[in-house]
Amino acid sequence: MKIVLLGSGNVATHLGSALQKAGHEILQVWSRTQVNALQLAGALSVAATDELRALDSSADIYIISVKDDAIGEVASSFPFRDKLLVHTSGTVPLDVFGDDQLTCGVFYPLQTFSKHKDISFSEIPVLIEGSDRAASDALAVLAGSISRTVERASSEQRAAVHLAAVFACNFSNHLYTIAKDLLAKEGLDFRLLLPLITETAEKIRSLDPKDAQTGPAARNDQVSINKHKSFLEPEPALLEIYTLMTNSILRSRDPQ
Amino acid sequence: MKIVLLGSGNVATHLGSALQKAGHEILQVWSRTQVNALQLAGALSVAATDELRALDSSADIYIISVKDDAIGEVASSFPFRDKLLVHTSGTVPLDVFGDDQLTCGVFYPLQTFSKHKDISFSEIPVLIEGSDRAASDALAVLAGSISRTVERASSEQRAAVHLAAVFACNFSNHLYTIAKDLLAKEGLDFRLLLPLITETAEKIRSLDPKDAQTGPAARNDQVSINKHKSFLEPEPALLEIYTLMTNSILRSRDPQ
Repeated sequence: MKIVLLGSGNVATHLGSALQKAGHEILQVWSRTQVNALQLAGALSVAATDELRALDSSADIYIISVKDDAIGEVASSFPFRDKLLVHTSGTVPLDVFGDDQLTCGVFYPLQTFSKHKDISFSEIPVLIEGSDRAASDALAVLAGSISRTVERASSEQRAAVHLAAVFACNFSNHLYTIAKDLLAKEGLDFRLLLPLITETAEKIRSLDPKDAQTGPAARNDQVSINKHKSFLEPEPALLEIYTLMTNSILRSRDPQ
Repeated sequence: MKIVLLGSGNVATHLGSALQKAGHEILQVWSRTQVNALQLAGALSVAATDELRALDSSADIYIISVKDDAIGEVASSFPFRDKLLVHTSGTVPLDVFGDDQLTCGVFYPLQTFSKHKDISFSEIPVLIEGSDRAASDALAVLAGSISRTVERASSEQRAAVHLAAVFACNFSNHLYTIAKDLLAKEGLDFRLLLPLITETAEKIRSLDPKDAQTGPAARNDQVSINKHKSFLEPEPALLEIYTLMTNSILRSRDPQ
C-alpha cells in the first residue's frame, strides 16, 4: 500500500520502519514541526512536509500518530474526504473523525515504543477498527502484513486494553524505577534484579498471574510487611504505594 | 557438600533440587509437618523427619527455608552448636541466630519461586552473609556451585534488595492480575498483553527504567489520564492505585 505518515514520534518512527520493511511505500511524512518531519523522512528516505494542505494525494492510507489530544485537530484539517484516514491511539475513539470523513479507522499497535530501542513488529498485537467493512478489511490486511496478531476491537474495548496496558506496562516500569532507586541507596546494582524481573514477566505465560503471586502480602506475612513499612517511613510517597499495593494483594487472596 | 534442608516450601523444593543437580548430597528433609517433609524428601529420594532432635548430625550445612517468622524458633531448637546453620530469607537479619550459634549465615536466592514452575538456578543471584570468614567462604562456594551471580551483602543491604524485589516483582505481578481482570470485563484475552509485558521487562536491560517510561503520565497527557479515571470510577480501589502511580510518575518526570 501507499502510505503517508502524519506524526514523527516514537510510534510513527517504529511503525514507518516496519511498514517499509514489509514492502509498503511510505510516500511522505508530515509533522507540524518541520525539523521533526525532516528527521523521520530522512530516516525513511521519503519526502517531508509541515503543511497538511501539501499532503500527497496519491496514498491509500493516511496514518495519524500524534499526541492523543492533537488527533482531532489534525483530522479536521485533513484535506481529503475520499481517503482512508486512521489514528494509532489506544484511548481515542473512532468518532474523533466526526461525520465528515467517509472512511476512517484505528490501527493501534499494543506495545511500548522507546526512541532508542528496536523492536520486532511481528510480535505486536494490532487492534483495528474501521468505519465500514472496506476500511476494516484494508486495516486487517495492512496489520497482517507486519504482525502475527490482528484483533478487531471496538473503541470501548480498545480503551480497556489501553488502560490494562497502563497498569501492566507503564506502572510496572515505574516500579522498576523505584526498585532501582532503593538499591542505589544501598550501593547495589539494579542488574541484580533483572533475573527476577524477567522471571516475573515470563511465568505468567504459563501461570495465571493470580496464581503466580508471591511475596509477603501473598503470604499474609505481617512481620515482613511491617519491617518494610518501617524501612519506608522516611519516604512517605513510597510508603503510600507500598501500603496500597500490599492491601490490594491482601484483598485479592483466596480465603485460606 | 552434605546438606540438610529444614523446610519444605517453594524455596526448599527448588533449592534442594538445584543443589542435588549440582552434585551436593541432600541427607535429610525436616519439616514441622510430617506429610510435607515426606513429600519433598520423596521427590529428592532422601530421608525425612519432623523432629529437630532427630536431625542427621553428619551434614556440613543446615539450610532453614521456613516462613520468616518461624526462623527464630527453628534456629533456637536446632540441636547442634558446631554446624553451619543458614536461612534463605531476604528480610530476616543474621542476628536471628542469636549468640548461641557459633557459625551461621544467610543464603538468599533472589527469585520468585512458584510451585509448578521450573526455574534455572544458574541465572539467580544469591546474596550471602556469614558470621565469620569461614562461613562466608563456605556459602560463596556453595552459591557458586549453582549460580553464576554470588554477592556478599549485609543484613541491611539484603533487606533493601528484598524490598526492591517486592516493588519490582510482587507488585508488578499484581498489576498483571489487575490488567487481566480489566480485559476479562471486555471479553478480551490476557494473552494480548504478553508481548507488551515481555518488552517492558526486556527493555530495561538496555535502558534505564526512568528513560524507558512511556504512557500517559510520562507524556503528562491529562486527557488520557482523565479518561482512565472516569473509566475506573466504578472501581474505587483500582482508581486509587491508578491515581497514586500516575502522580508518582508525574513527579518523577524531568522538568520539560
